[in-house]
Amino acid sequence: MRTRAAVALEAGKPLEVMEVNLDGPKEGEVLVEIKATGICHTDEFTLSGADPEGLFPAILGHEGAGVVLEVGPGVTSLKPGDHVIPLYTPECRECEYCLHPKTNLCQSIRTTQGKGVMPDGTSRFSMLDGTPILHYMGCSTFSNHTVLPEIALAKVNPAAPFDKICYIGCGVTTGIGAVINTAKVEIGSRAIVFGLGGIGLNVIQGLRMAGADQIVGVDINSDKIPMAKHFGMTDFVNPSEVSGDLVAHLVDLTGGGADYTFDATGNVQVMRAALESAHKGWGESIIIGVAPAGAEISTRPFQLVTGRSWRGTAFGGARGRTDVPKIVDWYMEGKIEIDPMITHILSLDDINKGFDLMHAGESIRSVVVY
Amino acid sequence: MRTRAAVALEAGKPLEVMEVNLDGPKEGEVLVEIKATGICHTDEFTLSGADPEGLFPAILGHEGAGVVLEVGPGVTSLKPGDHVIPLYTPECRECEYCLHPKTNLCQSIRTTQGKGVMPDGTSRFSMLDGTPILHYMGCSTFSNHTVLPEIALAKVNPAAPFDKICYIGCGVTTGIGAVINTAKVEIGSRAIVFGLGGIGLNVIQGLRMAGADQIVGVDINSDKIPMAKHFGMTDFVNPSEVSGDLVAHLVDLTGGGADYTFDATGNVQVMRAALESAHKGWGESIIIGVAPAGAEISTRPFQLVTGRSWRGTAFGGARGRTDVPKIVDWYMEGKIEIDPMITHILSLDDINKGFDLMHAGESIRSVVVY
Ligand SMILES: NC(=O)c1ccc[n+]([C@@H]2O[C@H](COP(=O)([O-])OP(=O)(O)OC[C@H]3O[C@@H](n4cnc5c(N)ncnc54)[C@H](O)[C@@H]3O)[C@@H](O)[C@H]2O)c1
Ligand SMILES: NC(=O)c1ccc[n+]([C@@H]2O[C@H](COP(=O)([O-])OP(=O)(O)OC[C@H]3O[C@@H](n4cnc5c(N)ncnc54)[C@H](O)[C@@H]3O)[C@@H](O)[C@H]2O)c1
Repeated sequence: MRTRAAVALEAGKPLEVMEVNLDGPKEGEVLVEIKATGICHTDEFTLSGADPEGLFPAILGHEGAGVVLEVGPGVTSLKPGDHVIPLYTPECRECEYCLHPKTNLCQSIRTTQGKGVMPDGTSRFSMLDGTPILHYMGCSTFSNHTVLPEIALAKVNPAAPFDKICYIGCGVTTGIGAVINTAKVEIGSRAIVFGLGGIGLNVIQGLRMAGADQIVGVDINSDKIPMAKHFGMTDFVNPSEVSGDLVAHLVDLTGGGADYTFDATGNVQVMRAALESAHKGWGESIIIGVAPAGAEISTRPFQLVTGRSWRGTAFGGARGRTDVPKIVDWYMEGKIEIDPMITHILSLDDINKGFDLMHAGESIRSVVVY
Repeated sequence: MRTRAAVALEAGKPLEVMEVNLDGPKEGEVLVEIKATGICHTDEFTLSGADPEGLFPAILGHEGAGVVLEVGPGVTSLKPGDHVIPLYTPECRECEYCLHPKTNLCQSIRTTQGKGVMPDGTSRFSMLDGTPILHYMGCSTFSNHTVLPEIALAKVNPAAPFDKICYIGCGVTTGIGAVINTAKVEIGSRAIVFGLGGIGLNVIQGLRMAGADQIVGVDINSDKIPMAKHFGMTDFVNPSEVSGDLVAHLVDLTGGGADYTFDATGNVQVMRAALESAHKGWGESIIIGVAPAGAEISTRPFQLVTGRSWRGTAFGGARGRTDVPKIVDWYMEGKIEIDPMITHILSLDDINKGFDLMHAGESIRSVVVY
């Protein structure tokens, strides 16, 4: 079939919206009509050329929601008409990782996914002249139609609006999951969230759900205050307005350091401050942000010997097929909010505007609706 | 009273064995006759002058065992004749730290202990001319008699031999506790232990107790092999004999990385290798070693985002008054071994020989018997 997609032809260039060929689903695969997709920093990271593993030409996008149109042979858990969210971290429920209680990093299709192809080693996308186009993060939601492995699709409540729940495909789950699955924050905890962008706001609402008593937000941009307060922030610190040491200030503000700290900036200096503002004896610091290629985190080992721990999270520690449908239900039940974070709705033709809004720091999330 | 002690008069000089004055126990304090004491790296670190917090003149030693001679007013849990192990990490069971489930770092007397004095702000030791001598780590086991707060003494099985169980006051508990309390290693785990000195050997026997399937020892000194095997090591790697990358070699040897890795060297490069040879998704790396002042650990944050965690342990996460008596019982029941690790027995007059043996790498533990 033919479909319309925004294609990343090369690094550093805007996306080009065009017709492309899409082959039907093979064994174990599913054809999905994407109804909406968010534009995330990771797409930008790859498009900019900063991602050393970026491949071109490719169809980016990994934060979508849509409807199953057709299933390939052997697909048993999905049927045409099902509403789904694509999963860049799949859940096969069979590999060593899926069977391990401490991780969500299913490895069953990792190698082919990293190469931009389906598990059989080929791409379903091509230019009208036949040149293959690569998949991206196994999702390629910047195409109106896409093909994914069955294990990379979460079946969700069909009453949920696509233009909101697409955000659960990455940002919402990453932020809330970091709190619930990775940190396992207890009621009454004190926490610090560094970076109040799309991820940080979701960490904040995860903390509110988990019953945290103190939720300190840290951002160099004070414009972030109203929205962060709306989601549950109790205290705000702008590092550029702190006279003296930021860590000492935060330790003081949290009565000795926070029980949990989260980096949602991707800045390695901030990651260090996040670790060091965790409480002696038991404070845990969770890295969510993705650092520039080659950047390293550092600290004195004494920080760890005296009881702090340093961890990270990918896709919020969520097992997609199991956890994503639950998060969609939480949204439908009003336990979490998404609507205020979707600041811009665009058409596919305007997708490059979404990247401009991101660069300008004007959007939390821009969503393309097909 | 008067007692005999090895006094550290100044940094970088050998200890001087001499008669000193010792005041009796005040409110909440206990007079202990030390029967045996180990000589640990931390004593050496302070004596050498490398410890930025080292104070002189002081009576070092923190790995002892002895008998209660006299208790001060208000002491209720100990009486003359009780056998005890001094605790450099006390357990008051009342402070914020003792009441927190995730830490053993009782802070109730930390400030005075760090200044080399008892909780009332004064020292019990002095030279015969009256010059005060400081306590060390709240213990000062290099004196035949010493005074400690009640909360810094673990009451142990009186049938246990002092010249063996003194080692439980630091090394044994640190190594075994890192496995049991901090890492909470599960049956069937794969582990890597970096550094096969006194601490590393106890990590190994902790791993054997915990039911680890694979226990890889890593040391630049292959002379450590027989003893490490005796305690449970299943594989040995000498980094200087590995052609190529040590981490890649260890990941391969453990089938993808270890579930748990432990640094017992104090070298920050080794700490990094320990983290990076932990398994993607769930590997935990525990820092036990104490690094030189100012040294920092580093890694790419991607190591954490992909599921490894970096932690540390002090005194093996043990709550001394609760856990140390249990470890003494394990020794008496044959569940753990200590005897082969006590490689040298010295008199107090020969205490400096213990430091020489340590420098030469000839001892695992030298113990002074009074
Ligand atoms: N681990 C994962 O699974 C995962 C998933 C998605 C995104 N991410 C990463 O999370 C990070 C945050 O994403 P986002 O969409 O929220 O980005 P964003 O740009 O919307 O938000 C980042 C925020 O951090 C603030 N900031 C920047 N530098 C700062 C500093 N030095 N101190 C304090 N605040 C600072 C900015 O003002 C901004 O508000 C990115 O690195 C992204 O790649 C990780
Ligand atoms: N965290 C705590 O509570 C605590 C308590 C006691 C001791 N410690 C620390 O634990 C560490 C180990 O103490 P120990 O008494 O076992 O010391 P040790 O000197 O007996 O043993 C260290 C071992 O590490 C090996 N080693 C040195 N460099 C190495 C390298 N680059 N690669 C591999 N192996 C290497 C040495 O050959 C030696 O066998 C020290 O740093 C000590 O200060 C920590």
